[in-house]
Amino acid sequence: MKGEKGLFVTFEGIEGCGKSTQSKLLRDYLESNGLDVLLTREPGGPRISEKIRQLLLDPENTEMLPETELLLYMASRSQHTGEWIIPALKRGKVVISDRYYDSSIAYQGAARQLDMKQIDNITLFATYSLKPDITFLIDLSPDSGLCRIKPEVADRIEKESIEFHKRVRKGFLDVAKREPDRFCIVDGCGTIEEIHIEIVKKMDILLKKNEM
Amino acid sequence: MKGEKGLFVTFEGIEGCGKSTQSKLLRDYLESNGLDVLLTREPGGPRISEKIRQLLLDPENTEMLPETELLLYMASRSQHTGEWIIPALKRGKVVISDRYYDSSIAYQGAARQLDMKQIDNITLFATYSLKPDITFLIDLSPDSGLCRIKPEVADRIEKESIEFHKRVRKGFLDVAKREPDRFCIVDGCGTIEEIHIEIVKKMDILLKKNEM
Repeated sequence: MKGEKGLFVTFEGIEGCGKSTQSKLLRDYLESNGLDVLLTREPGGPRISEKIRQLLLDPENTEMLPETELLLYMASRSQHTGEWIIPALKRGKVVISDRYYDSSIAYQGAARQLDMKQIDNITLFATYSLKPDITFLIDLSPDSGLCRIKPEVADRIEKESIEFHKRVRKGFLDVAKREPDRFCIVDGCGTIEEIHIEIVKKMDILLKKNEM
Repeated sequence: MKGEKGLFVTFEGIEGCGKSTQSKLLRDYLESNGLDVLLTREPGGPRISEKIRQLLLDPENTEMLPETELLLYMASRSQHTGEWIIPALKRGKVVISDRYYDSSIAYQGAARQLDMKQIDNITLFATYSLKPDITFLIDLSPDSGLCRIKPEVADRIEKESIEFHKRVRKGFLDVAKREPDRFCIVDGCGTIEEIHIEIVKKMDILLKKNEM
């Protein structure tokens, strides 16, 4: 399933790579060009997905099993996709999501080492087979990314070891290699402005192609 | 996967059929025979599963999509199975669970009409392939079951229509027909004592077979 009338853009990458900043800058750019944009994030979005987010990120839930973690991300995602993303795309909006299912491949697949085939199957179910039109992977080493997060406010996932986040990074790069048409890998070492310009260039081509 | 040293007993049936009552009576009977029993229920059990239960049953969450509902039940189940049920079985306990994965087949499959094959796939993942040794289905018509529930305290699922609960009942009967070796169907119209005696008879045979 493709985004029917609208355009579905996702941002992926490790913690602290600059996804949220770049999502907002892209939203502002697209809106200033007269486009109707929904900016959202995972886990989260609609009311029920935000409640699931609280469970997922609560640093007290240390006993959460990897399988439970995956299923909660997927539950949050199915509500987000069905209640917000698909209806917005049908209305012709550009939807920008800070994280989507590639994060499950990187975090629960590559880093927690759950079975990739099972993750793919559950993803199809939870997303109603909706794929992004384009995915920006902001690639950064965990040493650079994690130092942007204050330890006293780190959530359950951010508190994981540096080795964990290295596996996450590799997981993202592997999936990007498998789907070069969908992915655009951006070097996260650049300045905010440099990265934004690179993203905008790519988006302009895509918008033109889609006559938007 | 089978329950290694212990024995895994589940109770299934529509709301108000008497599962909780019969689970407790069976627990008391087994304990009075010197067995070590864990009585538990779904959705729920461990701390994280109980938090997911609150989300699932909150009557305010009317916008919850069927896919989200299924994934939340499965998330709750994976934590329950991995953190409580499997460890208890490994220690040789009899585990009695008031509901397990057959409820997803009946409620989200038969009643909400999600794809059965997908439910089966996600079930295998969420349960680490753990099957019950025996499942008691207390069969009752929704007209009889639902009148035992006070409308002012009904949860989100109990508030569904009578037609919904009829599909649930049929869903349970269908799965019991497919797995006659695992299922024991009990007529829920009997008295509490009559039903208990029937369950105990069946359990005594199983315990003897398992030299417990």
